[in-house]
Amino acid sequence: MMIPQYNKAFLWMTAPLAMVSSVFGEEEVDETKAGYEELIAGQGDTAYAFDFFATSMLWTVIAAAMVFIMHLGFATLEAGLTQKKNTVNILFKNVWIISIGLLTYAALGFNTHYPGEFNGFFSIGGPIGDLNADGGDTFGYGGTALAMTGYGDFIFQAMFAATAATIVSGAVAERIKLGFFMIYSTILVALGYTIAGSWHWGGGFLAGLDTPFKDFAGSTVVHGFGGAAALAAVIVLGPRAGKYTANGVKPILGHSMPLAAIGVFLLFFGWFGFNGGSVLSAAPGPLGLVFTTTALAAAAGGVASIITSMIVLKKPDLSMALNGLLAGLVSITAGADVVGPWGAVIMGAVGGVIVVFAILFFDKIKMDDPVGAISVHGVCGIWGTISLVFFATEGNDFSLVSQLIGVGAVYGFAFVFSLVLFLIGKAICGVRVSAEEEAEGLDIAEHGAPAYTD
Amino acid sequence: MMIPQYNKAFLWMTAPLAMVSSVFGEEEVDETKAGYEELIAGQGDTAYAFDFFATSMLWTVIAAAMVFIMHLGFATLEAGLTQKKNTVNILFKNVWIISIGLLTYAALGFNTHYPGEFNGFFSIGGPIGDLNADGGDTFGYGGTALAMTGYGDFIFQAMFAATAATIVSGAVAERIKLGFFMIYSTILVALGYTIAGSWHWGGGFLAGLDTPFKDFAGSTVVHGFGGAAALAAVIVLGPRAGKYTANGVKPILGHSMPLAAIGVFLLFFGWFGFNGGSVLSAAPGPLGLVFTTTALAAAAGGVASIITSMIVLKKPDLSMALNGLLAGLVSITAGADVVGPWGAVIMGAVGGVIVVFAILFFDKIKMDDPVGAISVHGVCGIWGTISLVFFATEGNDFSLVSQLIGVGAVYGFAFVFSLVLFLIGKAICGVRVSAEEEAEGLDIAEHGAPAYTD
Amino acid sequence: MMIPQYNKAFLWMTAPLAMVSSVFGEEEVDETKAGYEELIAGQGDTAYAFDFFATSMLWTVIAAAMVFIMHLGFATLEAGLTQKKNTVNILFKNVWIISIGLLTYAALGFNTHYPGEFNGFFSIGGPIGDLNADGGDTFGYGGTALAMTGYGDFIFQAMFAATAATIVSGAVAERIKLGFFMIYSTILVALGYTIAGSWHWGGGFLAGLDTPFKDFAGSTVVHGFGGAAALAAVIVLGPRAGKYTANGVKPILGHSMPLAAIGVFLLFFGWFGFNGGSVLSAAPGPLGLVFTTTALAAAAGGVASIITSMIVLKKPDLSMALNGLLAGLVSITAGADVVGPWGAVIMGAVGGVIVVFAILFFDKIKMDDPVGAISVHGVCGIWGTISLVFFATEGNDFSLVSQLIGVGAVYGFAFVFSLVLFLIGKAICGVRVSAEEEAEGLDIAEHGAPAYTD
Repeated sequence: MMIPQYNKAFLWMTAPLAMVSSVFGEEEVDETKAGYEELIAGQGDTAYAFDFFATSMLWTVIAAAMVFIMHLGFATLEAGLTQKKNTVNILFKNVWIISIGLLTYAALGFNTHYPGEFNGFFSIGGPIGDLNADGGDTFGYGGTALAMTGYGDFIFQAMFAATAATIVSGAVAERIKLGFFMIYSTILVALGYTIAGSWHWGGGFLAGLDTPFKDFAGSTVVHGFGGAAALAAVIVLGPRAGKYTANGVKPILGHSMPLAAIGVFLLFFGWFGFNGGSVLSAAPGPLGLVFTTTALAAAAGGVASIITSMIVLKKPDLSMALNGLLAGLVSITAGADVVGPWGAVIMGAVGGVIVVFAILFFDKIKMDDPVGAISVHGVCGIWGTISLVFFATEGNDFSLVSQLIGVGAVYGFAFVFSLVLFLIGKAICGVRVSAEEEAEGLDIAEHGAPAYTD
Repeated sequence: MMIPQYNKAFLWMTAPLAMVSSVFGEEEVDETKAGYEELIAGQGDTAYAFDFFATSMLWTVIAAAMVFIMHLGFATLEAGLTQKKNTVNILFKNVWIISIGLLTYAALGFNTHYPGEFNGFFSIGGPIGDLNADGGDTFGYGGTALAMTGYGDFIFQAMFAATAATIVSGAVAERIKLGFFMIYSTILVALGYTIAGSWHWGGGFLAGLDTPFKDFAGSTVVHGFGGAAALAAVIVLGPRAGKYTANGVKPILGHSMPLAAIGVFLLFFGWFGFNGGSVLSAAPGPLGLVFTTTALAAAAGGVASIITSMIVLKKPDLSMALNGLLAGLVSITAGADVVGPWGAVIMGAVGGVIVVFAILFFDKIKMDDPVGAISVHGVCGIWGTISLVFFATEGNDFSLVSQLIGVGAVYGFAFVFSLVLFLIGKAICGVRVSAEEEAEGLDIAEHGAPAYTD
Repeated sequence: MMIPQYNKAFLWMTAPLAMVSSVFGEEEVDETKAGYEELIAGQGDTAYAFDFFATSMLWTVIAAAMVFIMHLGFATLEAGLTQKKNTVNILFKNVWIISIGLLTYAALGFNTHYPGEFNGFFSIGGPIGDLNADGGDTFGYGGTALAMTGYGDFIFQAMFAATAATIVSGAVAERIKLGFFMIYSTILVALGYTIAGSWHWGGGFLAGLDTPFKDFAGSTVVHGFGGAAALAAVIVLGPRAGKYTANGVKPILGHSMPLAAIGVFLLFFGWFGFNGGSVLSAAPGPLGLVFTTTALAAAAGGVASIITSMIVLKKPDLSMALNGLLAGLVSITAGADVVGPWGAVIMGAVGGVIVVFAILFFDKIKMDDPVGAISVHGVCGIWGTISLVFFATEGNDFSLVSQLIGVGAVYGFAFVFSLVLFLIGKAICGVRVSAEEEAEGLDIAEHGAPAYTD
């Protein structure tokens, strides 16, 4: 251990706090001292643990802010990978999703998601109350293993909730009717995601399996849910005009690769909050591991998709490279806390290979997904959730059967839930804009304003 | 409380640290142990509190970084909502503001802002010295309620300071003379903002009212100050050429809505530092509450302005949606720590409605504000500061009279201060570019270079 | 100290945690209590220090995430300051660099960088193992002066590693062959940077000088390394076609100044993690100082370069203003923890002046560096590393000779290492695209896809 230059820091830490009295008057110091003593006395045996709790809670809210910025990442990624004429529409949808997602999570999502005691399948909850009341502002809320206050728990989970709808947003871009999407996304976030989530994180039947279903931060529960819902949406909606022609697939290029790249890097950044925050405390051991596995899986996904696209597509494709980073991230999300660094590398790399073939596959079967959301979140979500069984380090035992049950339940539910909403929407008001509106672009057709001027 | 998957984390925490001795030689361990003992002994009764202090101080500097990124948010929002030909000018102004804002805050702002003992109205301060000296690097600086070091206090507040000028920057965009704006913004940040701030946070007369003026993180002191200063600026400056014609208002479209959206999302992100950091410690209860009220108010503002714009403007307007998010944020900033989640929702939602009508109103009276800064920061600042009296939760009692005094004093001062500077500028050097320069665009006219090439 | 509005926060902290028992059943509370007691008992005398460790480790991983986002900053800065037709190529290179940088740092970089005991010059390391094993997940890893776990150390340093290659990327933009750059950057990050780093941070010969070489967060070891490597690259590569004509220098304008500005602000933001994280703990005194000196140096660099460009270039140049911010940041990076606020201002301001003249100088000698990387990172790196000897506050004594030795060794090694790689590349496969490809743009020539559509 050679760290010669930090002796100063160490010295600082051991400096006597008594120096305080030299600055302030005697009276002030006494007052301050009394404050500390009261502070310590009030916490008795748990004085020490309070600090760990405060640190952990701080991490929770910072992680929430980092997950929030993922919504900007999703917005710019989706905007960048689609046509200029639909940019206002895409940004607007993303403002809506985060806004309504936070509100509905307060109104019914949180208490649907974490019902505590219920039949294990669903129990629709009511609005949150004062979550700081009744010990909710102390570590009485969740103990040392869920080291956050009630509001900390709420805001971190609320930021996750809107993600499911955001994933769908990318897949249905450039042709969905705005009004329908606003209603659809509201119901998906408020009810669909939270019910599926309650099965795992809310103490539902997936948590009650003999070997409980393992999904650390949500490869299946968040990303898989969004991907499966997106698939159902795309089936009902159909492809964008001109994508699949008699002469084969005609790529519709994204209008701004810098926007797409900004999106992916922000998602990568936010993922440290997404996975890291899912440690649910500031426990240093797991925290460092999760940051490391998350970053290495992303990196491996990026490199693998670059190499794969060079071989398969004969060119170094930027959008594949970007999706490779995301594929790696989704692939590690279920097991980030139970695999080692090299397990993470393999899981991410395989995800990076899978995503290239998945994107090509969905194009082959004419499922038009402008941003590759079904491949990235849906397909890699399955890979990540299942592969952790094989890559988990010693002492972490999971059941392949439980993982398959979890994937089957969540994906199946998300698909059906989304399909039903889309079919109802199609029957009542229509889910797709007219051919004229699609050709004109949704910015003018739906919003009456372009995203860019010249 | 079902949190089965985190047993591992808990086990980790209880693992005996004695294992250390198995890795390092005996001597090293003894040395390390001695280090800890010295560390603990040096802090005596306050050993425990030191940790809370360290955590709080960490939060302060992270929050400062988050507030810093708001300046990128302001820059891209302003650039996005204005014309292509003025983009370099806008970015340049924002580089200037943050740079000169930090420097003047060190040179005289900090000690003007927090004069400690003075007549309650103003006391211009000198440059900062070594803020780590004399207990400034311990919690002797501010105790447990201001749990940061002197430099922590400085850097967090310095990031706030430049905000006032940034708000004005948006309102005067596309027509102000660069040289004048550089001088104006310097004086506004260095003197105007800090004097007004000292009345509240520096122990001035607003803090000394019978029921002290309440403005948690600055709905009035920061945002209102900027909005009122902007109004005076716009009055002197006049509208952009071609905006108000004989045939009514001719909207001048922003040149890049993605830039505007990036700006608003970054502002939202940074606001968690702006409001959350204003807790002034890592106290878990207030921290979770503030994050929650901040997010919910923003969300409610977004949804409310979307619905309002759909009704009033007959279309889902993206710039209104974006301004709605900001309106919600400004509306909650004064009371984020004293209202509950649903109070925050109502306060934010009303802000989101107000902002739409305010923007229309200022256009009606021909006050040309390209980004809506006066409406967002000025008008919603008033709403947030006053409404907290009615939405504060039990036990938090505030005085409507005190709030009105605070609003009147700060807005009045900002308006007059800014007006005087603009009138002096107009008399001496002129504040507005020529009609030719305005038509050509400030990028070429002032900077000799375009923002984009083709 | 007037902080009337925070009494509530203080009261909260002293609230008896006993209230917990009123919410949960008796049994649950007992269980929770036992958990705390076990937790405290398991840590004995170091119970208190554990909290400081947890807080410090949290800061380390957050700082790592902030350094990560610098890679987005580098990518957008480089893309913004170059031509539209090379944007995909630039974004692609940056995805590659961060991905391969993380992977190679795990495979051999970390253990090359921190070899522990070696001959002081180089010792190539192997792959990382389970860094949480053998006390790596406790403060047994580095004690109180390196308060992080093994994985924390890894991920923070891994984010730094790719920076060196990113700096070169900017200097060689718009004309380098992609395939060669991918190989070059891999070797530079994996071996070049880590060997040079080991001399200083890995306990090598620079740390072993009588007065050890001082480079806090890497003015020389990171930025200087990148700048010197970039210079060698540019010498071999030659300037872009059309830049230096018979009629003098013909500026090639950047295609998007908003992208460039986003880049610089993100770099500024991330630098708080870069420098702040280099405190290697959450020690409040150093942390506040480092944030303050970092911000003030950047601000001074921005203002100084603005004034200098106004005088020298007769116009307020945005790209100079942006590079001035970066120049200030590089200038303070070596000494951020040992100078005072006004020392930082001077160091940053001089950096801001230097960078303008350096950029003009390199253009004069026909060293074509599209983003000014050699000037910003290379030249200001020298200034920052040397000037700290003169600006360090009392009690911090450094040796000019040691600083010169460090600069000479690292810059010399980086230059030669990079030169050799480029010469080998030139001999084997070529390092530069053809004149036709350069004219067409690398996006189409190398990637077959444009960055923008219309």
